[in-house]
Amino acid sequence: MRLDRMSVSALEARFAAGQRGIILPLGSLEQHGAPGLLGTDAICAQAVADGAAARADGVSAPVLAYGQAQFHLGRAGTASLRPSTLMAVLVDVMTSLALGGFTRVLLLTGHGGNIAPAQAAVQEVMAEVSMGRLALPAPLTVKLRAWWEGPRLIGLRRALYGDREGFHATPSEVAIAMALHPEAAPEGWPTFRPLPADPLHDAGGDRHLDAARHRAMFPDGLIGSDPSLARAEHGHALLEAATADVAEVFAAFQAAPDHAAR
Amino acid sequence: MRLDRMSVSALEARFAAGQRGIILPLGSLEQHGAPGLLGTDAICAQAVADGAAARADGVSAPVLAYGQAQFHLGRAGTASLRPSTLMAVLVDVMTSLALGGFTRVLLLTGHGGNIAPAQAAVQEVMAEVSMGRLALPAPLTVKLRAWWEGPRLIGLRRALYGDREGFHATPSEVAIAMALHPEAAPEGWPTFRPLPADPLHDAGGDRHLDAARHRAMFPDGLIGSDPSLARAEHGHALLEAATADVAEVFAAFQAAPDHAAR
Amino acid sequence: MRLDRMSVSALEARFAAGQRGIILPLGSLEQHGAPGLLGTDAICAQAVADGAAARADGVSAPVLAYGQAQFHLGRAGTASLRPSTLMAVLVDVMTSLALGGFTRVLLLTGHGGNIAPAQAAVQEVMAEVSMGRLALPAPLTVKLRAWWEGPRLIGLRRALYGDREGFHATPSEVAIAMALHPEAAPEGWPTFRPLPADPLHDAGGDRHLDAARHRAMFPDGLIGSDPSLARAEHGHALLEAATADVAEVFAAFQAAPDHAAR
Amino acid sequence: MRLDRMSVSALEARFAAGQRGIILPLGSLEQHGAPGLLGTDAICAQAVADGAAARADGVSAPVLAYGQAQFHLGRAGTASLRPSTLMAVLVDVMTSLALGGFTRVLLLTGHGGNIAPAQAAVQEVMAEVSMGRLALPAPLTVKLRAWWEGPRLIGLRRALYGDREGFHATPSEVAIAMALHPEAAPEGWPTFRPLPADPLHDAGGDRHLDAARHRAMFPDGLIGSDPSLARAEHGHALLEAATADVAEVFAAFQAAPDHAAR
Amino acid sequence: MRLDRMSVSALEARFAAGQRGIILPLGSLEQHGAPGLLGTDAICAQAVADGAAARADGVSAPVLAYGQAQFHLGRAGTASLRPSTLMAVLVDVMTSLALGGFTRVLLLTGHGGNIAPAQAAVQEVMAEVSMGRLALPAPLTVKLRAWWEGPRLIGLRRALYGDREGFHATPSEVAIAMALHPEAAPEGWPTFRPLPADPLHDAGGDRHLDAARHRAMFPDGLIGSDPSLARAEHGHALLEAATADVAEVFAAFQAAPDHAAR
Amino acid sequence: MRLDRMSVSALEARFAAGQRGIILPLGSLEQHGAPGLLGTDAICAQAVADGAAARADGVSAPVLAYGQAQFHLGRAGTASLRPSTLMAVLVDVMTSLALGGFTRVLLLTGHGGNIAPAQAAVQEVMAEVSMGRLALPAPLTVKLRAWWEGPRLIGLRRALYGDREGFHATPSEVAIAMALHPEAAPEGWPTFRPLPADPLHDAGGDRHLDAARHRAMFPDGLIGSDPSLARAEHGHALLEAATADVAEVFAAFQAAPDHAAR
Repeated sequence: MRLDRMSVSALEARFAAGQRGIILPLGSLEQHGAPGLLGTDAICAQAVADGAAARADGVSAPVLAYGQAQFHLGRAGTASLRPSTLMAVLVDVMTSLALGGFTRVLLLTGHGGNIAPAQAAVQEVMAEVSMGRLALPAPLTVKLRAWWEGPRLIGLRRALYGDREGFHATPSEVAIAMALHPEAAPEGWPTFRPLPADPLHDAGGDRHLDAARHRAMFPDGLIGSDPSLARAEHGHALLEAATADVAEVFAAFQAAPDHAAR
Repeated sequence: MRLDRMSVSALEARFAAGQRGIILPLGSLEQHGAPGLLGTDAICAQAVADGAAARADGVSAPVLAYGQAQFHLGRAGTASLRPSTLMAVLVDVMTSLALGGFTRVLLLTGHGGNIAPAQAAVQEVMAEVSMGRLALPAPLTVKLRAWWEGPRLIGLRRALYGDREGFHATPSEVAIAMALHPEAAPEGWPTFRPLPADPLHDAGGDRHLDAARHRAMFPDGLIGSDPSLARAEHGHALLEAATADVAEVFAAFQAAPDHAAR
Repeated sequence: MRLDRMSVSALEARFAAGQRGIILPLGSLEQHGAPGLLGTDAICAQAVADGAAARADGVSAPVLAYGQAQFHLGRAGTASLRPSTLMAVLVDVMTSLALGGFTRVLLLTGHGGNIAPAQAAVQEVMAEVSMGRLALPAPLTVKLRAWWEGPRLIGLRRALYGDREGFHATPSEVAIAMALHPEAAPEGWPTFRPLPADPLHDAGGDRHLDAARHRAMFPDGLIGSDPSLARAEHGHALLEAATADVAEVFAAFQAAPDHAAR
Repeated sequence: MRLDRMSVSALEARFAAGQRGIILPLGSLEQHGAPGLLGTDAICAQAVADGAAARADGVSAPVLAYGQAQFHLGRAGTASLRPSTLMAVLVDVMTSLALGGFTRVLLLTGHGGNIAPAQAAVQEVMAEVSMGRLALPAPLTVKLRAWWEGPRLIGLRRALYGDREGFHATPSEVAIAMALHPEAAPEGWPTFRPLPADPLHDAGGDRHLDAARHRAMFPDGLIGSDPSLARAEHGHALLEAATADVAEVFAAFQAAPDHAAR
Repeated sequence: MRLDRMSVSALEARFAAGQRGIILPLGSLEQHGAPGLLGTDAICAQAVADGAAARADGVSAPVLAYGQAQFHLGRAGTASLRPSTLMAVLVDVMTSLALGGFTRVLLLTGHGGNIAPAQAAVQEVMAEVSMGRLALPAPLTVKLRAWWEGPRLIGLRRALYGDREGFHATPSEVAIAMALHPEAAPEGWPTFRPLPADPLHDAGGDRHLDAARHRAMFPDGLIGSDPSLARAEHGHALLEAATADVAEVFAAFQAAPDHAAR
Repeated sequence: MRLDRMSVSALEARFAAGQRGIILPLGSLEQHGAPGLLGTDAICAQAVADGAAARADGVSAPVLAYGQAQFHLGRAGTASLRPSTLMAVLVDVMTSLALGGFTRVLLLTGHGGNIAPAQAAVQEVMAEVSMGRLALPAPLTVKLRAWWEGPRLIGLRRALYGDREGFHATPSEVAIAMALHPEAAPEGWPTFRPLPADPLHDAGGDRHLDAARHRAMFPDGLIGSDPSLARAEHGHALLEAATADVAEVFAAFQAAPDHAAR
């Protein structure tokens, strides 16, 4: 169930039944190569969150459509929160959810650039509680996952795309967006360019470059990915896999008794 | 067109044609009486923004699903950003949009509690520019509207609900949510209670009470409204009216030359 | 009575008598056209606050002489707080007043640019209380007014200046400043220029432009006003009218029982 | 001349003559013993600033009526800014003054609790410039003084009150307030109590205790002072002495060429 | 070479030779079980940084002795920065290093709780650059490593401690502290307790619990580790291994040409 | 005893014996003339803190190696925290120490630029407590000292260096650094240049100039000091003197009963 389409009554009935978990998807609005959808990350995160909630008898929150994507700033349509801003948002939303009765929050990101700020935000809430600056009505537990890190999804994307998955505008996320928004039908992808060897950086999507340098290094906006491989039918299967992975994590998380209770 | 479902290529084509305006809807996740949808404000703001953009050949951004709703905190499912947090989000998003090529941003709120922080956020961006703390690539102009303040909408909701429109969980917004989410079908609304005379406060939705006092004053979560009057067919008509109002504002705003050009 | 010229003993006597309201005037230091007084807004707000307090057996606080006036930055003598700074000030002052025994604060602004940050500041205090971040010793209620929005004042200024009142360096405020500081005697006002039609902006004083663009649009510093019409004798009458308006609001506000008591 | 009672024209004439200095007085609103005026610190700072400006052909700004006075919080009528808030205010005001043409700012405090935040605020502005976060149009130099630290004033208060001057609600400041507000006429001062020996603290006014502990240690609100010695005629003489001291400092400060010019 | 024991002259000679990299170790002050050294994390991070710098002809900065350790707050001797505070520190230090001539910063943490804030801090600096809020004199590249994640160290600690390494107060770090501070000689370690199965949490050291719940779950302060296995001679070997690992990373990082140069 | 080399057990034993004081040294990393050690301030502060703790049966914390040194930014190797950042660090560390059982914190700075932010940070903690934003488990008392302000040290440095001590890169601090790091052996000091008469500034080290202007005024990085006079043997004697001075202050501070107890 999607929280924004639920009523207070329906939610209170869940709480009365002891179901106090929620999946909060984190998106981003950013370039995904010239033809890719700007909202790909939010679209995927929301879809996986909604699917997993449906499957695991849980609740999913509306996606935070704006994330931390500073490296893409200056490109048409990209928006980015500073990490400190994203942290403030998550601190307030997590505090609110706890005040309103939730005790388990699964942050589900669709964008790697959100991971560090999201983890730091959880630490910030806990620090404020530990320091005597914030009083929550009940213990709150938070877990963070990206939708692509479960075993089913990893297996499937490896089978479909091998080493052309890459780190941004990946064929996986493009395929899911195509499945969900067939009217968009991106075409004209740039030719695949493998990730260049780079002693300055580690492998991975967030290379800690400012936007100008990032653009110079990745002028077509792709980071070792080949989104031309994406097909809508892949997208349905990938969504199914990711949903199953996340539902499993969420179900166990929501059902687990609190430490204090053991 | 919805920005998150557009590509960089499509957006750049618009920019090349001189179309540099966007509608950014602001929502909230908060109680709307026991049976009302928690996401009513975001649902309405997004729908009106999308409709107005479609009608005026504009672009609408994905809604900010979380707003300033502190007075409802502690009720199941409500989330609130602090005003300072909402300001930080809007400062970053407006800055990003300007960096990426937009020069006109119409903030369209679906929730009264966002108005002051949104205005203050616009002032904050401008103050940072004026003080030499922030350099934008081109002049940015921002306008703020609520979706319910155009003449067509005002006329229609008065005709439909008269003095039972109220200030929160209004029949107008409930009707739009019903039109868009017929599966939700809220029922069992509390009996109508007119807004009590209150020398402590002005008329209007944001009474500047903390959540505990607000709840004591409005235990059923309604503020002078009678959402039991809402019908899905009203919703379609209200949406049409609001969309026409906002499209008119946006079209003139996007088309107007900048001061510097005159 | 002016709070800064009162003693703790005198104030405690008022509290013992149940009089726990205060008027807090908000000013600005900013250009008011070439000959206008830089402190016009603070001068007016303090005078109306003091007069209303005297008339309604209330207390007025010393004016906050600096406000949010970013659009005038760069002009000689203008000072501006960022909105976020003004909010921090008001959060601290409101918290302090509550800690020291006040339960009703009427914010009385003399400058339109303060309105959004002041409202957001009230929301911020309430949000902090609602979130469990701030504990106040007793319920605090805050109301915001501009000194020019009561019926007596509106009627009088319309009678005196018609559509030449404008939005900044208005003849009303200039007249009050002349009445209170006859030694200043501004002269040599620029020729009246009606507010230009402007599809980019709404009517009103705060146009959300940065200072450079604002100056380009309003080079003489006036915004649709004709301060050459101002006379000191008008000022005395306008002050009387505004004082009566605000005293009425304050008296009812201070006397009203709290919700919790009803 | 008082800046708030000057016009842009008059100020620009001063700038054209190379007079680019200003005195910015910093006050506080806080308990000064049961009979003392709550605004004593602001009253004194403003009076000395105005007098010194008049004497040295300078400009004085309107006082910041609220300062850092956390140790007095909870007592009727005291207001305090957090140090971080006071810093934000001073950063914005100093930046504004520099943007508007001032190059020399003499901060003149009437309250010891403002000193550390004011110094830190000057460092903050300079740090932002040094780090490339803030661009000022011309070099800004800031100096900080308390009104009581010049030689004439020190000599006179020693002669008048010897070791009964103390650190808060001092006879000096009370006398000046009496001279300026004879209608207030405080009486009924508590019996003099010398500052207790205290290995926990250094001598001086700011003992870094929270308000509850401060009140327990100084229940009558006096800190080693005997304000019953204050007389209005002392006040006139003390004001004259302080004014002369500060005028001397300001005149030299305003006239000194900038380093870059040497 | 340790930066704090170098002179400007010596550093400028390095810069002239094109050596512009630095290792910045991040520590923590926190409980390490009853007998463990509170500064273990800082001691290890500093030692590995100094050793790697010596080996790779680099420079190491003095350790930041305080980190993010909120989960241990309330235990004697633990100190924690909030994540937002740690980020502010790192933003300022990285900015400073860039202003002073460094272009490559290797953050080397000795504590897992610092990782998310450190990554977020790097993103924050880059976001400020990308948004036009901060101007650095030359491109800055930052990499983050923990001292224990290189292949030599991982192999050795596995050989020494197998699955008793755990996540906090690990025998590895205790052994290094013993090697460097033989006078401390911790003894009386609690009996080994394997990490309990916990569906609420992922494996790893930072479990996102507030301090009270963390203490309830880990009353002896150990998290799946058996520090009783630590020996000083292990420490010397572990330090050698970690030093070699980090030196290798740093040497490549410092020597790699910037993207802009390719 | 150095806190980072102590265990929880050892610290708890001290607490059980009523010894709840700590010395927290504050350093800086900044230019000290071309040949001086960049870490001189931290080296001295740590050494005096450790020595005083050893002498007075106290505990010393690890030094905060980074301080407020904005005026030296841009010179090779200098790092600076903004004052607001340093305050955040100290607020968190003081809060942590209080949560962990300390009740007396002696801040001991080795750098004048830290003094205002450190005092403001103490005020900030106390303000948060006074305002109901922070709850500490027991009363916390904080005192601030520079290591050079005790009588023994003042006498000795006057005897050794007379009026050539100056305000930065002083022979005193250089001598202590030489005594502790004989391998560094700075040489080639610039010729002594007395502090120029400067009507723009007061005497003292922190002249509130941004870094570019500071460098223009003090191109060799010395501020009225003659570090060529420094000798390692002086350093040992100066360290002894400062240690004795600080030990005396700390011993009385730690032993004094709290006000509440009297």
